[in-house]
Amino acid sequence: MSGARFIAGDWGTTHLRLFLCDGEGTVLDHRNGPGAAESAGRFATVFASLASGWESEHGPLPAVLCGMVGSSFGWAQAPYVPCPAQPQQIIAACTTIEGRIHIVPGLSCQNRFGAPDVLRGEETQLLGILGRVQRRQWVCLPGTHTKWVVVEAGQVRDFFTAPTGELFAVLREHSVLARPPQGGDAAVEAEAFNLGVASVVAQPEVQILHRLFECRSRTLSGELPAAAAAAYLSGLLIASDVYGARRALSSTFVPDTVVLVGAPQLTQLYASACAALGLQSDQVDGATASLAGLTAIYHRLS
Amino acid sequence: MSGARFIAGDWGTTHLRLFLCDGEGTVLDHRNGPGAAESAGRFATVFASLASGWESEHGPLPAVLCGMVGSSFGWAQAPYVPCPAQPQQIIAACTTIEGRIHIVPGLSCQNRFGAPDVLRGEETQLLGILGRVQRRQWVCLPGTHTKWVVVEAGQVRDFFTAPTGELFAVLREHSVLARPPQGGDAAVEAEAFNLGVASVVAQPEVQILHRLFECRSRTLSGELPAAAAAAYLSGLLIASDVYGARRALSSTFVPDTVVLVGAPQLTQLYASACAALGLQSDQVDGATASLAGLTAIYHRLS
Repeated sequence: MSGARFIAGDWGTTHLRLFLCDGEGTVLDHRNGPGAAESAGRFATVFASLASGWESEHGPLPAVLCGMVGSSFGWAQAPYVPCPAQPQQIIAACTTIEGRIHIVPGLSCQNRFGAPDVLRGEETQLLGILGRVQRRQWVCLPGTHTKWVVVEAGQVRDFFTAPTGELFAVLREHSVLARPPQGGDAAVEAEAFNLGVASVVAQPEVQILHRLFECRSRTLSGELPAAAAAAYLSGLLIASDVYGARRALSSTFVPDTVVLVGAPQLTQLYASACAALGLQSDQVDGATASLAGLTAIYHRLS
Repeated sequence: MSGARFIAGDWGTTHLRLFLCDGEGTVLDHRNGPGAAESAGRFATVFASLASGWESEHGPLPAVLCGMVGSSFGWAQAPYVPCPAQPQQIIAACTTIEGRIHIVPGLSCQNRFGAPDVLRGEETQLLGILGRVQRRQWVCLPGTHTKWVVVEAGQVRDFFTAPTGELFAVLREHSVLARPPQGGDAAVEAEAFNLGVASVVAQPEVQILHRLFECRSRTLSGELPAAAAAAYLSGLLIASDVYGARRALSSTFVPDTVVLVGAPQLTQLYASACAALGLQSDQVDGATASLAGLTAIYHRLS
């Protein structure tokens, strides 16, 4: 194993993914570890246990870590950078430990709905794609807490959060509206997802609160297999998210496409909903974007 | 105890409330028992154990029961009456057991959003207030599954369901957005509820999905005490429900007031949100409405 130059890490609330990289960000080796919640109070130990093999071979390496590792309950706090934020401002605000471990800050803003908003981890994915997107762009990073970001003049202008993934999860697990699918028939679930999207497209102004009960009533009426209610719910939620975001973001500018950054399975669902609502999209793998961002930061700091 | 004429019962999923009544529906005595879920397979036994004392004193009495006791997993199925439904159609569709126990049917409709919809239990509350409201009226019955009902020409025209209470409960118990309040300071919670309503009123077109994260971000920023996040969430959800319902229902007719039927604590929250959105409301206690409906049915069947 030759050419190892730095360690890149995505240390979220529930998972740590650590990569040994060469100077171009090519992954030479990787390790998984416990998330920031489980690592509380012992970040240095967790990091050392995973990286010691690499460092015994290559000597001490610089590291760039993003995610909740930089939060108030993380290894070292890297305070939020207020928007609008330029890439160099984000990089300059990294917090450095032991002279070689750089922790990436999150971003904060007053969102366009008049509320404070924050993100942490997504700033690194944004840094990873900024060189590839237009200087005016909508970026959607779907997940537990989906982030909708406006990029303008090469900087992060503002953003807002939609807890679409969390809402889906709590309703599927804990409500009577949509039990977890039992059958797992992918074709049936895909059709149910598309039906949920179509319901929103047919009458997009209807409050999502007034659509959720459909997951149950269409099952009771026999229109929808019970095992597909969760997929229908997913279609309703994602299409509502996209429709509302488009309306909210259009006041600034309307791009040709929206860039979707995340897990491929999830960005594909968002892409389907975008298409049904007449919005073109490009998909970028979230892990790739994250690694590109960490590599860009390494280059600027080294 | 004299003048006992019939037994009125509200037998929902989780609770049974049984009342011994005189001919005018005045409650002479009452008993509580297990809900329909817990009573599955032994409805007759549960009923007899609660009513036997009354019947040994007064002889066999007719009974009128509403709620999930009439569902497919209830004592005896009383199928849904399709809307538009007149009071006499609802009463005629009661299912009778042992010649004297009458079980009230639910209602079904194709709601104005193109989806099938159902209610069970609320039809009895509607029967209890129809004599008191205008012949064209919006009625809102808030709860786990809030029902918005259009009454026209003295009949139930159509309705739709908003699972506002269930959404509040699952988000409070299972999401990171709003932990259960710890302090229980009523004044702080009332202020937080009003702030949530005000957020919706300020920009009512914003998708509720794009507001939910505020419960957390306003706590992180120090704008909102952590113990008041759930009350803020309640304000957001109820105001969104009212705003969306008003828009959806206005296509038929706009009444002077909306009638709110339910638990007083809950109808008061809806009344606050209505007022903030410029909508007048009247409040009716849900238990009173239910008993009035059961009494009206007793009179028509006896």
